Amino acid sequence: MHIGRVIGTIVATRKDERLTGSKLMITQPLNIQKEPIGEALVAVDTVGAGIGEIVIYAKGTAARHAAEKLQSPIDAAIVGIVDNIDIY
Amino acid sequence: MHIGRVIGTIVATRKDERLTGSKLMITQPLNIQKEPIGEALVAVDTVGAGIGEIVIYAKGTAARHAAEKLQSPIDAAIVGIVDNIDIY
Amino acid sequence: MHIGRVIGTIVATRKDERLTGSKLMITQPLNIQKEPIGEALVAVDTVGAGIGEIVIYAKGTAARHAAEKLQSPIDAAIVGIVDNIDIY
Amino acid sequence: MHIGRVIGTIVATRKDERLTGSKLMITQPLNIQKEPIGEALVAVDTVGAGIGEIVIYAKGTAARHAAEKLQSPIDAAIVGIVDNIDIY
Amino acid sequence: MHIGRVIGTIVATRKDERLTGSKLMITQPLNIQKEPIGEALVAVDTVGAGIGEIVIYAKGTAARHAAEKLQSPIDAAIVGIVDNIDIY
Repeated sequence: MHIGRVIGTIVATRKDERLTGSKLMITQPLNIQKEPIGEALVAVDTVGAGIGEIVIYAKGTAARHAAEKLQSPIDAAIVGIVDNIDIY
Repeated sequence: MHIGRVIGTIVATRKDERLTGSKLMITQPLNIQKEPIGEALVAVDTVGAGIGEIVIYAKGTAARHAAEKLQSPIDAAIVGIVDNIDIY
Repeated sequence: MHIGRVIGTIVATRKDERLTGSKLMITQPLNIQKEPIGEALVAVDTVGAGIGEIVIYAKGTAARHAAEKLQSPIDAAIVGIVDNIDIY
Repeated sequence: MHIGRVIGTIVATRKDERLTGSKLMITQPLNIQKEPIGEALVAVDTVGAGIGEIVIYAKGTAARHAAEKLQSPIDAAIVGIVDNIDIY
Repeated sequence: MHIGRVIGTIVATRKDERLTGSKLMITQPLNIQKEPIGEALVAVDTVGAGIGEIVIYAKGTAARHAAEKLQSPIDAAIVGIVDNIDIY
């Protein structure tokens, strides 16, 4: 999984019907210093993440498990909200 | 999923028969400022996307779910047409 | 899927037996201007592609579907021969 | 699989329930000289790895097999603790 | 699939039990001029590859098929030993 920050939302009226009811969040990947790295992606929220929150997201089949929509076109999902990152 | 713009089409007469009937769109990845990033890919349209439209696309098994062709060689598909990207 | 050019072949006498009978093509990824991008990969031909032809290739599970060898170690396959790329 | 070093932990109280009981480790990819390469990721520990240890990690479906949680949102897992890397 | 050279081995006493009996090879990706590109990975040998040999390797689910360990944490495997690369 990767660390990211929810920075926005995306609205798509015409879309695969299996995405209906899934909240599509613009998620910016972060490094462990919580600095942006690379480009934002679109992840389905499965844990009630809000704008600005630091999250864990998963990609691929893992994302469909997270969303409990195995037969859907989802390939990225937010699976946790980060309380603490501890680097030793 | 990722954000992209449909910038063209690709025609292939000789192809895997399970691609027949699927519209192959040249899709340019975009960042959240809607600027091109990286190289274009070939994605199957599943939502009636037109040239110039900004779309959401998915990769891997998610794309075969989108196309409802699970046993096909599809590994990228357009799954939504973007109305709005809201960054906070 | 991605666009590439078949630039060579690779011979491997000792190999996974499920690759026997599959033609292994060195495939150079191309951008939409048909210029080389990144490094060549090894893709199984499933459509009778010849040296120099511009092709569409797929990766991952999609490639095993293309090859109709679901239980094989194939992770990339040529799935179409490009007639035209139209950019608008 | 890839080589990495466990450099920290991540705590997420609100998360996919199938992650409960899985230890989420911040894992820094390493090259074969054991120097950091690229950005750290979040991998589930399946072998009792400790902070500072050099490990082997796997990604994708392989990670769910490692965790023996096939229906979970896990996409990266630590699958071995490295004793020796021998380069010839 | 990709081209690589076997440059070493990795020993891990504590590991996922399904890796027991699988030889873990440090594999350096190569371009078609057989020059190193990018960072080495850890691939399971399935064809009796030796140190220094140029090989074809596969990633993802394809690797578990190669190893005939579908329920294992393997995500990369050597699937052929290269005799010749012919570029035209």
